[in-house]
Amino acid sequence: MPDCNPKLVLPSWINAFTAEHSGFFMSDNERMSFAIELSRQNTLQKTGGPFGAAVFERLSGKLVAVGVNLVIKSNCSHNHAEMVAIALAEHRLRRYTLSHPDLPDHELVTSSEPCIMCFGAIIWSGIKRLVCGAYTVDVESAGFDEGPKPDNWIEELEQRGIEVITGVERLKARSVIQNYIAEGGLLYNGNPRR
Amino acid sequence: MPDCNPKLVLPSWINAFTAEHSGFFMSDNERMSFAIELSRQNTLQKTGGPFGAAVFERLSGKLVAVGVNLVIKSNCSHNHAEMVAIALAEHRLRRYTLSHPDLPDHELVTSSEPCIMCFGAIIWSGIKRLVCGAYTVDVESAGFDEGPKPDNWIEELEQRGIEVITGVERLKARSVIQNYIAEGGLLYNGNPRR
Repeated sequence: MPDCNPKLVLPSWINAFTAEHSGFFMSDNERMSFAIELSRQNTLQKTGGPFGAAVFERLSGKLVAVGVNLVIKSNCSHNHAEMVAIALAEHRLRRYTLSHPDLPDHELVTSSEPCIMCFGAIIWSGIKRLVCGAYTVDVESAGFDEGPKPDNWIEELEQRGIEVITGVERLKARSVIQNYIAEGGLLYNGNPRR
Repeated sequence: MPDCNPKLVLPSWINAFTAEHSGFFMSDNERMSFAIELSRQNTLQKTGGPFGAAVFERLSGKLVAVGVNLVIKSNCSHNHAEMVAIALAEHRLRRYTLSHPDLPDHELVTSSEPCIMCFGAIIWSGIKRLVCGAYTVDVESAGFDEGPKPDNWIEELEQRGIEVITGVERLKARSVIQNYIAEGGLLYNGNPRR
């Protein structure tokens, strides 16, 4: 029987990778290129799906936490890249919300627009800004299901005080997803639409 | 600096509690009363919000995993009762989906209708049936935010092959939430609607 307490552990290649890329990321494009490189490395290292994300301090650009898709490897359907990055950021900062008054504003940069679960998790995370790469249509046309997100999901986030920017480095982000599928990568939705 | 690998750990009272209630739960009401008692104990023991959930084998009624709201205690905005129960069930069964062909059908029983994040997570979890206690309006009128769930969320789940039953032991479930608020329990949404 496995340990009854699941532990959120990043793949071992990530340590060396983040050591190479540590520091401050000033522009949206720099932050996004980093998230996309995480998604690409995750497929090359065969540690999960073609998705990467990172939490940054919004103004300083300091890298706070990274995430990659770990669903299959961790036996946990929650472990999308965005969920992993948010959980690690909150854990490191010892806060259950990144909007805690003693923290600076944080943002989540993700290689693809979020699925329905991550959309919800973004609201509860307390981030103030969301930056996305590939569009929902890019993810879905590759065969992944993003779930029943409201059509006005961007507006819903903005109404809750979360700025949303999307399509940053879109083609680069999309090509990682397309390559994953072209090379036979697994579609791991728990309950695909019939 | 805390351990950089967050671990999902249930409060210590849960061991004794589940030992007392172990075995098979045959009816929806029995399963729901157990989930509601988890929610009540979580508030009495001051380990989190007024929400409880459990994963059962659908036909046999065998208890597979339990969850309570651990957002504040675990410094993780993801740790709603439903998320905890699903993560523990998948971890114990060593599968990233409870729809894995070598598993029997599973169901999630939750003391309240899910928020937007848990709604999404339920889809990816592979459960085949969802049983809810308190309605969304009960949760929201107490001051909690369930987020921008689609109006037709039940239909969306059913279209994906997940049977939904709601309002089971509703008044009992609602009174736990109301008592929590009456006694000054914290509303811990990360980013409340302005």
